[in-house]
Amino acid sequence: MTTTLNNYFRLFDASRTEKRAMDDLLSMFTPDAEIILNGITKRGIEGFMKAFYEYNSDVKHMWDKWELQSDGSYRTNWAVCGQAVDGTVYAKKGIDIARLNEEGKIVYLENVQEDKNAFSKYK
Amino acid sequence: MTTTLNNYFRLFDASRTEKRAMDDLLSMFTPDAEIILNGITKRGIEGFMKAFYEYNSDVKHMWDKWELQSDGSYRTNWAVCGQAVDGTVYAKKGIDIARLNEEGKIVYLENVQEDKNAFSKYK
Repeated sequence: MTTTLNNYFRLFDASRTEKRAMDDLLSMFTPDAEIILNGITKRGIEGFMKAFYEYNSDVKHMWDKWELQSDGSYRTNWAVCGQAVDGTVYAKKGIDIARLNEEGKIVYLENVQEDKNAFSKYK
Repeated sequence: MTTTLNNYFRLFDASRTEKRAMDDLLSMFTPDAEIILNGITKRGIEGFMKAFYEYNSDVKHMWDKWELQSDGSYRTNWAVCGQAVDGTVYAKKGIDIARLNEEGKIVYLENVQEDKNAFSKYK
């Protein structure tokens, strides 16, 4: 399971330049997988990935360790740096929470940015 | 000049795994180059690089564009993500300011992290 989730990050970055990596990435998710980005839910990873590379010319993920939680989900801390298509660079930290079904497909992926939490403290 | 400075970032990341990249990186600096990291000055890049990879198992830089300033220095915004040897991941943004001599060697490199500026506002 954690190998699958490690491959999720690897394939995310590789899919920028390699169609085979994109196909492999999409195949890791169920078609109606729940994708939650900063509290907003969408169904399916494909639309998200297409939108991501419309706005990003480069990206690199690093992550510490996917760890099984008591509720059956997996969680890791991640760090990312990237470059938008306009050349702007960014760096972010956060947490990913994932659930896989009995076939090992990702059915749930929640991305929580540390900045958002930081901001919410000051509201 | 900007190609040299672009290669600085490329070789910094490549030098993690490739000795040739490290040698090429070190050759870009004068032996007594002024290296300023968050306000602390050291002489020469070699000690800094050795220390960096003692504490970091991976790093990736992105940068927008080295731009010539009116004082003859070059400046770019950068973003970095990395992984410490203990597995912890980090993401940072900042500015690099560089000066080259007439032979195209880097004689001055100042690294300013955005976080430090942000913190200083709240002191």
